Amino acid sequence: MRWLRRLASGVGFVGIGAFGLIGVALLLRLAWVSWLYRPTEPVHAAAKAAYLASLPRVDPETAPSFVVILFDDLGQGDLSVQGNRLIRTPSIDRIAAEGLRMTRFYAASPVCTPSRAALLSGRYPVRSRTHQHVFFPEESLAATVRKMLGAANELPRDEILLPEALAAAGYATGMVGKWHLGGIPGHLPNDFGFAEYYGVLWSNDMQPLHLYRNRAIETRDETDFSPLGFFDEDGEREPRGVDQRLLGRRYTEEAVAFLERHRDEPFLLYLAHNAPHVPHFPDPAHAGGSEGGPYGDLVEDLDRSTGAVLAALDRLGLAQRTLVIVTSDNGPDYEGSPGGLRGRKQETYEGGMRVPLLVRWPGRIAAGAVTDTPAMNIDLFPTLLALAGLSLPRDRIVDGADIGPVWLGGAPVPERFLFYFPAIGAAPDAVRDGRFKYRRETGQELRSKPHLSDLRLDEEAHNLVRRHPEEAARLRSALDAMTEEVRSNPRGWR
Amino acid sequence: MRWLRRLASGVGFVGIGAFGLIGVALLLRLAWVSWLYRPTEPVHAAAKAAYLASLPRVDPETAPSFVVILFDDLGQGDLSVQGNRLIRTPSIDRIAAEGLRMTRFYAASPVCTPSRAALLSGRYPVRSRTHQHVFFPEESLAATVRKMLGAANELPRDEILLPEALAAAGYATGMVGKWHLGGIPGHLPNDFGFAEYYGVLWSNDMQPLHLYRNRAIETRDETDFSPLGFFDEDGEREPRGVDQRLLGRRYTEEAVAFLERHRDEPFLLYLAHNAPHVPHFPDPAHAGGSEGGPYGDLVEDLDRSTGAVLAALDRLGLAQRTLVIVTSDNGPDYEGSPGGLRGRKQETYEGGMRVPLLVRWPGRIAAGAVTDTPAMNIDLFPTLLALAGLSLPRDRIVDGADIGPVWLGGAPVPERFLFYFPAIGAAPDAVRDGRFKYRRETGQELRSKPHLSDLRLDEEAHNLVRRHPEEAARLRSALDAMTEEVRSNPRGWR
Repeated sequence: MRWLRRLASGVGFVGIGAFGLIGVALLLRLAWVSWLYRPTEPVHAAAKAAYLASLPRVDPETAPSFVVILFDDLGQGDLSVQGNRLIRTPSIDRIAAEGLRMTRFYAASPVCTPSRAALLSGRYPVRSRTHQHVFFPEESLAATVRKMLGAANELPRDEILLPEALAAAGYATGMVGKWHLGGIPGHLPNDFGFAEYYGVLWSNDMQPLHLYRNRAIETRDETDFSPLGFFDEDGEREPRGVDQRLLGRRYTEEAVAFLERHRDEPFLLYLAHNAPHVPHFPDPAHAGGSEGGPYGDLVEDLDRSTGAVLAALDRLGLAQRTLVIVTSDNGPDYEGSPGGLRGRKQETYEGGMRVPLLVRWPGRIAAGAVTDTPAMNIDLFPTLLALAGLSLPRDRIVDGADIGPVWLGGAPVPERFLFYFPAIGAAPDAVRDGRFKYRRETGQELRSKPHLSDLRLDEEAHNLVRRHPEEAARLRSALDAMTEEVRSNPRGWR
Repeated sequence: MRWLRRLASGVGFVGIGAFGLIGVALLLRLAWVSWLYRPTEPVHAAAKAAYLASLPRVDPETAPSFVVILFDDLGQGDLSVQGNRLIRTPSIDRIAAEGLRMTRFYAASPVCTPSRAALLSGRYPVRSRTHQHVFFPEESLAATVRKMLGAANELPRDEILLPEALAAAGYATGMVGKWHLGGIPGHLPNDFGFAEYYGVLWSNDMQPLHLYRNRAIETRDETDFSPLGFFDEDGEREPRGVDQRLLGRRYTEEAVAFLERHRDEPFLLYLAHNAPHVPHFPDPAHAGGSEGGPYGDLVEDLDRSTGAVLAALDRLGLAQRTLVIVTSDNGPDYEGSPGGLRGRKQETYEGGMRVPLLVRWPGRIAAGAVTDTPAMNIDLFPTLLALAGLSLPRDRIVDGADIGPVWLGGAPVPERFLFYFPAIGAAPDAVRDGRFKYRRETGQELRSKPHLSDLRLDEEAHNLVRRHPEEAARLRSALDAMTEEVRSNPRGWR
């Protein structure tokens, strides 16, 4: 017991006792979360099954197909159509020219996992237990810490995702790219409605980054493992097994092959690129070609990939019946342009959550249209289901709205509140309506104060709480109501 | 000794000894700095006296007068002429319309004290020992801590400031407003060449904020003192004695009175407002009138003040022989617009240091001109001296350049490097030339890396180190050379 006495001379026996108790509590919690706790709620798992079984088969002749292209950490100002002067994105710009561009479109979170869960489920991150930052590979220390703290590390099985509903209605569903919603059996893309999957489960700075085909590893990442560190393009460790430089090219080939396979039926293709998330490994075929450096190379790779998808749609005669959407999962990280907006990835300022949204549907959406109607990626689930003629589940709140009328040039969406949920936390930081954004005192900076912005004329520079106290009170009250709502009913069950 | 044994059971006797030694060392250091250390270097104090004595008297008929108006924490995007859509600044815009606007003008520091020292001395902050953030009132704990850490809390007497040189050449010199370069006898505005002074020595969130006329307190700040806290407009403590809401109005009256007193001779008027620095106490005469909230009210107060100065110049027949400059000491703080630039006050990103610069001299500077020639507030000292026909001191490096030719439409300034010194630290973070900015790995963010920006086309979004390695190396080498230069010769003596 000499070591114990020695330790006690440092922190005291009370200290040892306290640390010991905390350690035991964390281990008990880990055991509970790992073996006993099941986030799926049987009632809503059953309701999900019933909802999916209730969906009608769509008419394969008239049902629109969907291609959703998602970029990772691409900023509001990273496309030439959005004002970038170093990076050239002619194919993405073509989608804007032939379709609609939304200048006030938001990701539902300033980080990957919750934003993707929201896009696919139509619900704010807290609904799907993705409100505590991003998921980590099972093998990593971060995953263990998450579990010890009681944070989810995979999407609950009772969530209903877009591909599940569309598959139930007869769509061919395929996903190519980054999942980031879980890595254990029962929580993979094929477990959530994607009949076909090719890609990596994690962000490209996470390890191991195995390349999956459906539920099986097709190419194993053999890069030296660092359970604590990030993988970096300037780091010591050589990538082995999976060559990130070729990831985008492979994704594109797989996406085009999917379109070829399913040209004769309605389909959903979800092409979720890993780029331009750090580390930056552009395709060697064009590396160094962009004036925007390696980040620009990656965005121009994404543009070429988008061009290849458009060309395949043209070649296969699918362009007219396919709605193509291009967007990003959150604002730019260390690099990338927020387009003059305040803040970046991780932050609920505009630059962290406002992202490009381009949508094309020849003959249905007017070419070259631009709208400043606010919308969020939670709207895609109800919008695409409505376009496919499918109803929404009734056992749960779907936070998004059908913005099809905005796209198709019909009636405007009724005025509503959109909430800005932080990277970590169940309560929203901020809320906006058509004109104002109200941000509560978040403590993210010294002398943090409630802040009201007029987003028509200003990018969160000037605090108008005193200028428009009634508007501030109105938005504060909406924010408080939503905070209370997600506190009492986080999963949003009805 | 029971308390000692009890303490020891917590941190151990070694811990007590270590803390004790550190405490004694800090106290010794404080004693040394307070009573023994004199930052003034006798050789250069003598050289300063000789330089000032050597300056010729200017011809009062032909010498131009100067009005330098400095705002506190006003951002690149806070004026309507710079794109603001909430705040109206017609009088400041008039200066731009009747003169020249520089779109790539920088403060020499992202915080107050070093920026002001640079503006008045023509030298980078480290030269004047103002490279360790801002000075604090003598009574504050922060001032004591600064001294314990060996940081200066007043400008060395051997520095040569613009008003000293101009006064020696026969100018009437007056300062109205915020000094922030020291608060003890021998280091006040009147000790550095301003024959007349009216204003407060500190930022308006510091205490006590006495109002001085020359070397004496005219109005005493009786607000309850909080040695640790900041003064805030939403705080518990009521301001007593000095009413910040009327500060700008008083400054304007004093500035106009100075112009009236000295209408018949060449003069330098340095009008250094406290606004729009936090806390925000707009003039009650117009409070609530701006669409930009209290911050907007303050900027519009500044605009009205500027308009009153212009009107006085017109009324006194001084407009033609007076060069008027409007600028800011650093980028915007929590509030205020960086005009789409990255970063804010405290940061060496563009938004922290790029500020508006408007200069008017009817008949000499072309009306409505705009230039993107990079320049910095260290250039004002050599430029104004050159316009007055005065030579520079020879015993020291003056880092700034004469940019008179840019203003007057003559030859362009030769290509040069401008350095971005951080709020704390003797070495520059970054350097720019006419096109590129190179930022070393500063560790201010996760995965901080050297960053090369093309400032013609991009606002620090894209890292071009790999795209233009030769430019990165060239700028890195300039940055390293300057770092070594200020390490070996911080005060810049020749």
